[in-house]
Amino acid sequence: MVFRVLSLYKEFIDSFAATGVIGRAVDSGAIGIDSIDIRSYSLDKHMRVDDYPYGGGAGMVLSAQPVVDSVRAVRGEREIPAVFFSPRGKTLNSALAKHYSKFPELILLCGHFEGIDERALEILEVEEVSIGDYILTGGHLAACCFIDSVSRYVDGVLGNSESSENESFENGLIEHSQYTRPREFEGLAVPEALLSGSHSLIADWRMENSLEATRKYRPDLYKKHLDSLRNTWRQQK
Amino acid sequence: MVFRVLSLYKEFIDSFAATGVIGRAVDSGAIGIDSIDIRSYSLDKHMRVDDYPYGGGAGMVLSAQPVVDSVRAVRGEREIPAVFFSPRGKTLNSALAKHYSKFPELILLCGHFEGIDERALEILEVEEVSIGDYILTGGHLAACCFIDSVSRYVDGVLGNSESSENESFENGLIEHSQYTRPREFEGLAVPEALLSGSHSLIADWRMENSLEATRKYRPDLYKKHLDSLRNTWRQQK
Repeated sequence: MVFRVLSLYKEFIDSFAATGVIGRAVDSGAIGIDSIDIRSYSLDKHMRVDDYPYGGGAGMVLSAQPVVDSVRAVRGEREIPAVFFSPRGKTLNSALAKHYSKFPELILLCGHFEGIDERALEILEVEEVSIGDYILTGGHLAACCFIDSVSRYVDGVLGNSESSENESFENGLIEHSQYTRPREFEGLAVPEALLSGSHSLIADWRMENSLEATRKYRPDLYKKHLDSLRNTWRQQK
Repeated sequence: MVFRVLSLYKEFIDSFAATGVIGRAVDSGAIGIDSIDIRSYSLDKHMRVDDYPYGGGAGMVLSAQPVVDSVRAVRGEREIPAVFFSPRGKTLNSALAKHYSKFPELILLCGHFEGIDERALEILEVEEVSIGDYILTGGHLAACCFIDSVSRYVDGVLGNSESSENESFENGLIEHSQYTRPREFEGLAVPEALLSGSHSLIADWRMENSLEATRKYRPDLYKKHLDSLRNTWRQQK
């Protein structure tokens, strides 16, 4: 799977593409991250890509021309979906990440300043995604979070010893706590069940810990869990 | 305001700290980003910081010792809150970002692999924050999003021409669309009101556009907006 990232901060995207699990996935060829500078498509003699907003107000707006031209250059004759990061987009969650992991190629369009000229978004028929209800100074960070969360569902990104199955949100619950050596650290012991060697005791402890964490930290998810249990029971009657 | 970021990917944090608006805020001294490698606190002769999870299962767990020692080294005698990025944390939003912007100094602890030994989190009394309901390969990206969204509320980060007041979520609504030159682009014109020169026509257009975008893209926020209007009216009676 290849991500074509269009932004004003190519170096930052390249740094992300060389880091950690994602860096290894790029090296192995499981994913590709192609970072493109929108500025290189500017037709302005000073390579400007932004201008003042019509109607006045704070900040600058990314002009339609370099955005439209750069996305078209990447698309060529192909129909590649373009994801634009915006507060009004669909909120990213595990299900949406999994959905996007099925595409062989995606264009990720990163806004900057006060946003992008609305006409560019209309012409390019972008799909809008939000990574959360907070404002970022640019879409480049959102693009990295998107790539990171989507890539884990792409074959070959997580090693054999890793897995996306037991993670938080995968089953609607928060993941259980983790412990590693030593057995005792500053007077705190590892829970007995995890040392028992019994698969069923370990599985029970983890499920209980996961349920308890969800109830305590994410009552919204816990409520959904209870509702889904109730529906399952009803169907079984 | 100073962010002390403890992670395994110091170079990536440094790259973030040198990019765009955040890079300029660091240069001007409005914020500081101090990036610390957890690995440099490992007591292991091979500088290892992770180990297998007790109870088995996929992935590795960050050991308590380097995490506890690195946070303590940064804290010294001071009481600096430590934010840990985790799916079970409080979900980041604009209000939480504003809350954290009031601290002179914060420690940001980035997990990796399958997580951090639970005892380290307990001993350090971390505050847990989640940037969204999706899984990342590490906390380093979450830390960048956190710094980015928090910094905009710190004096001197946004220039005079910028502002955090009219952004999405600030008034519970999605921000209006933006347009810049040219007046016509591929047959699409800028809305008349924005060219009118009339402050009130422009303000009306923007408010209507903002309400319409919220209704269309974020019905959950729109519902909250209607509820709050209703409450205001009730109180005025």
